[in-house]
Amino acid sequence: MGRSSTAQERLLDAACELLHIRGYSAVGVAEICARADVRKGSFYHFFASKQALTLAAVDSHWTVQRQRWQDLLGTGRQPPLERLRLLLDAQAAAQRADKAAGGTVRGCLLGNLALELSGQEREIQTRLAEIFEEQAALVRGVLAEAAETGPVAADTATARAVVAHLEGAVLLAKLADDPGRLDGLWPAVQRLVRAG
Amino acid sequence: MGRSSTAQERLLDAACELLHIRGYSAVGVAEICARADVRKGSFYHFFASKQALTLAAVDSHWTVQRQRWQDLLGTGRQPPLERLRLLLDAQAAAQRADKAAGGTVRGCLLGNLALELSGQEREIQTRLAEIFEEQAALVRGVLAEAAETGPVAADTATARAVVAHLEGAVLLAKLADDPGRLDGLWPAVQRLVRAG
Repeated sequence: MGRSSTAQERLLDAACELLHIRGYSAVGVAEICARADVRKGSFYHFFASKQALTLAAVDSHWTVQRQRWQDLLGTGRQPPLERLRLLLDAQAAAQRADKAAGGTVRGCLLGNLALELSGQEREIQTRLAEIFEEQAALVRGVLAEAAETGPVAADTATARAVVAHLEGAVLLAKLADDPGRLDGLWPAVQRLVRAG
Repeated sequence: MGRSSTAQERLLDAACELLHIRGYSAVGVAEICARADVRKGSFYHFFASKQALTLAAVDSHWTVQRQRWQDLLGTGRQPPLERLRLLLDAQAAAQRADKAAGGTVRGCLLGNLALELSGQEREIQTRLAEIFEEQAALVRGVLAEAAETGPVAADTATARAVVAHLEGAVLLAKLADDPGRLDGLWPAVQRLVRAG
């Protein structure tokens, strides 16, 4: 790997980390460069702006996460709802791991940006909305499988409700700085997807 | 009402508005003063800092909202779950009204701040966490009433799950800039609070 691609990756990693911990408005290009150990002049060789870097960081984050979602939800030995449970457990475990490693529950990078950015930075918001739709589509796939053998709702609204519930539960866990708040996530989602 | 209390109220109103639209980090004292038509010197007569003003703005917002929650959930002619439905309908209506008046879904001021502030500004976060706990307690009260006559879960975890679900659904509606995303809120919450 060449020197320049290493600098680009360091910028992406630093952006993911700082955006997750401190948000979009509170973080500037200079701080990202300092954390990545990249000169500001080099920054603009890779990214036109903080917005462009944020878009790339969001994509990079979701590329890794999507693979995890697909692995956990993909057809395998477990029954479909059990795979949905594994996905939700993994989200809770990630919050517990953050708390153990960094001292605080950091929440979901995508959800944090979604609520911070409001009407500004429409391009980032559009990308975030697409990602949440991809998440709902993945959930819908596993619900459709489950609906073949049991009373499970597998419509788009229910799949979106699962994603919404996950984001809302992570919000409260982050605010309480307590990953234990996610202990009830699976029972709640189980009720949420029950048909009839 | 004296001149100084009017200036203080204008600062609170301007802060609520700007924090809601643009978030905490993106908004400065100068901008709040300009919108409130208050000189910066006067600002510090009322509030020690942007943080102090934000805390006061959050309290002022929740004081009004709490009264609405209590009015909608309080004992009345409607059965308890119907009152919960009225509360959720009112939240969806508020997002529709924002969209109609300002062109965008603004989401929930408290949820927006909760996800933006992260580990910073711990004092504001603590206050937000208390408010969401107050919301859960209000929801729990109405669930307890409903549980007297039907299969409804009325534990703290279920009440918190309702609040989480509302916040998550508002997040997705804000991101999609589509209040129609809240149309499924009540059916989802109905399933969420079903016992057994």
